Amino acid sequence: MAKSDIADIFSQNAERKYASHQDLQQAISELQEALPNKVIMDPNALKTYGSSANSYHPASPHSVIVQVHSTDDVVKVVNIARKYRVPVVPYSGATSLEGHFSGISAGDICVDLSAMDQILEIHEDDGDLICQAGTRWEDVNQILKDKGIPLFFPLDPGPGATIGGMIGTGCSGTNAVRYGTAKAEWFLNVTVVLPNGKVIKTRRRARKSSAGFDTTKLFIGAEGTLGIVTEATLRLAPVIPTKVAMAQFPDVQYALLDNHMMAAINLAGLTSRELPVSDTLFLKLQGTDSSIKETANAIKKIFKKHGSSQFEFAATQQQAEELWENRKYALMSTLTAGGEGTRVWTTDVCVPVSRLPELVYKTKKDLADNGLHSTIVGHVGDGNFHALIQFHKDEELPAVSAAVHRLVHRAIALDGTCTGEHGVGVGKKEYLVDELGPDTVELMRTVKKAIDPLNIMNPHKLYPDDNADRKEHRIQ
Amino acid sequence: MAKSDIADIFSQNAERKYASHQDLQQAISELQEALPNKVIMDPNALKTYGSSANSYHPASPHSVIVQVHSTDDVVKVVNIARKYRVPVVPYSGATSLEGHFSGISAGDICVDLSAMDQILEIHEDDGDLICQAGTRWEDVNQILKDKGIPLFFPLDPGPGATIGGMIGTGCSGTNAVRYGTAKAEWFLNVTVVLPNGKVIKTRRRARKSSAGFDTTKLFIGAEGTLGIVTEATLRLAPVIPTKVAMAQFPDVQYALLDNHMMAAINLAGLTSRELPVSDTLFLKLQGTDSSIKETANAIKKIFKKHGSSQFEFAATQQQAEELWENRKYALMSTLTAGGEGTRVWTTDVCVPVSRLPELVYKTKKDLADNGLHSTIVGHVGDGNFHALIQFHKDEELPAVSAAVHRLVHRAIALDGTCTGEHGVGVGKKEYLVDELGPDTVELMRTVKKAIDPLNIMNPHKLYPDDNADRKEHRIQ
Repeated sequence: MAKSDIADIFSQNAERKYASHQDLQQAISELQEALPNKVIMDPNALKTYGSSANSYHPASPHSVIVQVHSTDDVVKVVNIARKYRVPVVPYSGATSLEGHFSGISAGDICVDLSAMDQILEIHEDDGDLICQAGTRWEDVNQILKDKGIPLFFPLDPGPGATIGGMIGTGCSGTNAVRYGTAKAEWFLNVTVVLPNGKVIKTRRRARKSSAGFDTTKLFIGAEGTLGIVTEATLRLAPVIPTKVAMAQFPDVQYALLDNHMMAAINLAGLTSRELPVSDTLFLKLQGTDSSIKETANAIKKIFKKHGSSQFEFAATQQQAEELWENRKYALMSTLTAGGEGTRVWTTDVCVPVSRLPELVYKTKKDLADNGLHSTIVGHVGDGNFHALIQFHKDEELPAVSAAVHRLVHRAIALDGTCTGEHGVGVGKKEYLVDELGPDTVELMRTVKKAIDPLNIMNPHKLYPDDNADRKEHRIQ
Repeated sequence: MAKSDIADIFSQNAERKYASHQDLQQAISELQEALPNKVIMDPNALKTYGSSANSYHPASPHSVIVQVHSTDDVVKVVNIARKYRVPVVPYSGATSLEGHFSGISAGDICVDLSAMDQILEIHEDDGDLICQAGTRWEDVNQILKDKGIPLFFPLDPGPGATIGGMIGTGCSGTNAVRYGTAKAEWFLNVTVVLPNGKVIKTRRRARKSSAGFDTTKLFIGAEGTLGIVTEATLRLAPVIPTKVAMAQFPDVQYALLDNHMMAAINLAGLTSRELPVSDTLFLKLQGTDSSIKETANAIKKIFKKHGSSQFEFAATQQQAEELWENRKYALMSTLTAGGEGTRVWTTDVCVPVSRLPELVYKTKKDLADNGLHSTIVGHVGDGNFHALIQFHKDEELPAVSAAVHRLVHRAIALDGTCTGEHGVGVGKKEYLVDELGPDTVELMRTVKKAIDPLNIMNPHKLYPDDNADRKEHRIQ
């Protein structure tokens, strides 16, 4: 029977131990030999690379950092890790808010891919390019612009994010309402070092293929738990003339940035002029001058019907970029505006679009009722929003955490998700069973266990911890 | 070691036998008891449901057909199939060209989902709807139109295709260049009966989620080998005013429908007026009247530069629909135009867009050199095209098959895929290792074996057959 086969792997797996202290030291020696001058043991670095200033999840320092420069380097690391059973934690942009790159207390190897930041091929005629996983999306777009190639990569998560991290978290960003997320078709293929040390490329470079289920998608959102992505082929979109507009609304139920967020942007002094402190919707319109004008007129009518007092295009291209960047630097503005010592817990629930106003309204009320202050910035078109809850002292953390917990369950009750774009990491594991059901979570674990039977790839992230009632949900 | 664990399952699996004749009869008796009046044993039906008139792959009749009406019915079938180890083959629209629903010679249960054709919920404000797997995409769009809801489902594969089949093959269609394929984000979630009999829903209804890798995507393109999809939540797109245009070109390197295809459309008598017999590009332009006019002017300039002699909008909405439908009825036109007894082998390779002209040109030459006649219809914007190779007698099949083989390898050599949208089924298994590499194929097999350890879900489809050199490629 299948039951016993699978159960055997599970139980043997559960009994397996990671490397002893001695084995870990031996693994580090082998890394130093195999990858000379690429192994870092500086305690400050081990600590810094193992935790994030903007997340509040348990984290240990890494045991060792390896700065890889090629797919071959990653293979060497994974083979040594497998030999000694040392967990491997991938790291590049370090912008995660959910503990994705936290160190593992049993000992681990942090694989730093940030030096793998090269664009390898640009195929302008095909509208794609191949780059390494440590490349930042902003650099991809800057390089295309500098070369005068009228194409861009539409996924635009937080500043500093890298292609590898964007794949790992299944990111999106402000363009998602028009272009979709990392789970759409922007990654034509990925090159992955599997836990068994094999290097695969998931697909060729054609724009579409029906050759089986899409193994590229296995790695998008897998948070480094199924293998380490080292290269990717990005599909690019044509640059279309774009204008930025904003409209103020009387009520946050209709808006993208709430009044607190607008005040924070002004306080942070990041715009050259003061913006109205009112719930505000930012928009991008694309097309020729005349079609943008037509669209804007249609939008103005709709906005007026819903009480918008103002609708204004950015006057210049510079102002447009500035407006949009401020939208993207929401975390920084909120930290700055809160004054010295301000810390921020960022949430990212997502619900069906029609449920968003109710969710935002109730959340603002709940935060106010509990004496918490927050800015709000969202992606209205996607049903996704961020509450950036401000606090100053450790003693406030339980109240913040409880508010986050209530917010997530409010979103799930509205047919939503605990995470629209930031991923699960350490922070949201506890919500997955409630959101997806035990059997869907068990399916995810089944895939994980089949591909990484030693559980060395970023363990203790993403999948809910095993617990007493897990057995009920096993694949039979 | 992981190696032995995985190897054990593989070898036990390999030794497992499917149901004996006696067990199969017992399984059928249980089906008749559990699903009264839903079990079909008529020999003609068993044969018809087990093969397709337009594909030329080995096929056996099914052993039994069960006409399911609910997810619960499917659970009953899968539980009996698992108990007796009888393969299960899902069936609905029966438009597959690659033997996806072929009967299994060892004996099988055909699960006919075509009666599960209900739309269960429409969420106009959220732009989504929930329907059963047997629903045809054309019915989804007709029902939305009839209700006056200005939304539509953009995936438009061949006429008669159902949502379940579209998910199984990872379909696309003529709208893919603008809206993407089934592997984009048009399926927000799917409800699946797993091989273990559990029913899962892969995700909630939010438009995006980063809660782990996307288990929905596991089932898109899996061809029923990982479970049976019974329901899906479809994301809808706003209806945008659309005009259809066509332009004739001197050379097929630039065209979508070749001169043979245009002649076939005329011969089939499906248009109210005769169309020019010349390589032709069909286009859809979306937007307001003025923006379509602007776009058309820009396109005309580009076409003129590339030698187009004509550019013409469909004069009326009816003519537009007629033109586009003829594009979609390519197979029927080609069959009709070929005269009595004509048979057609349809191919669907896809390459990076810039390689398409070379591929089409060489393929037309190769077919002509080998005395084969074919129409060609493609998706220029995706790099995908269909050669519909005509023949009349069984004796011609080896020459046709050899030409298809050369075509597929020509496409793979251009960084392309053996299948842009029709799937692998029985027909293209042999190409996967060349296209994806042995380790990527092995990853697919690893997932299959973990989820369906008894290999009862549509076996002998999609995954290349095990062979002597397989051992080298095992996950260690």
